[in-house]
Amino acid sequence: VSEERNREAVKHLWAVFDAFEFARAAEVLSPDFVCEWPQSRERIRGAADYIALNEGYPGRWRCRLHRLLVDGDRAASLVEVTDGSTTVWASSFYELRDGCIERAVEYWSTPFEPRPGREQWVERF
Amino acid sequence: VSEERNREAVKHLWAVFDAFEFARAAEVLSPDFVCEWPQSRERIRGAADYIALNEGYPGRWRCRLHRLLVDGDRAASLVEVTDGSTTVWASSFYELRDGCIERAVEYWSTPFEPRPGREQWVERF
Repeated sequence: VSEERNREAVKHLWAVFDAFEFARAAEVLSPDFVCEWPQSRERIRGAADYIALNEGYPGRWRCRLHRLLVDGDRAASLVEVTDGSTTVWASSFYELRDGCIERAVEYWSTPFEPRPGREQWVERF
Repeated sequence: VSEERNREAVKHLWAVFDAFEFARAAEVLSPDFVCEWPQSRERIRGAADYIALNEGYPGRWRCRLHRLLVDGDRAASLVEVTDGSTTVWASSFYELRDGCIERAVEYWSTPFEPRPGREQWVERF
């Protein structure tokens, strides 16, 4: 039951981000939620600041949840984020309690060109 | 029990990559293992080609498994990969059967500079 609540919480987070209804993220974020982005060594403390930051990001981005795993009080998601021209992928690792997200560590991935010299092992799609 | 075998399989994969004993990855990869990298739209078919590609990548890379979630026959890992000067993070989403990895979709993340204008919501670490 707890795992199902955790699963629904992460689904809700990305659904409201996709809908651009950022304030509703507070329904599943702990007030003292903390998010970390190791790539830029940035940390956002508090659901309010996390929501404000996301609201303030320029552009209209759609979020499509491709994968969601729940393992006890931890979850991982893979979300494709696109504004129609640029696509990035968010890999997020969550810690939850009773369906409430307390912590996230997020990694952002952008398109890249295949490294030359490995064509013999690779096909393109 | 199946989840524990799946967990051990992913741990083994990254342990042998960290040890640069690539051939031993075959112990946990299905022969018809398929790996996809959506960022470059590359697909590697077969454990042998996946091992050869990784063996052929230049440099001595250490792999540190930070996070590992198992949800039935699916798993997700977050691994910090570094050669001592460059650091990248691999987010991998696996499909397994009886402790054997059949499919992986991997996303690579590299360091980036914080976007200007969000300092009021962010602390650095």
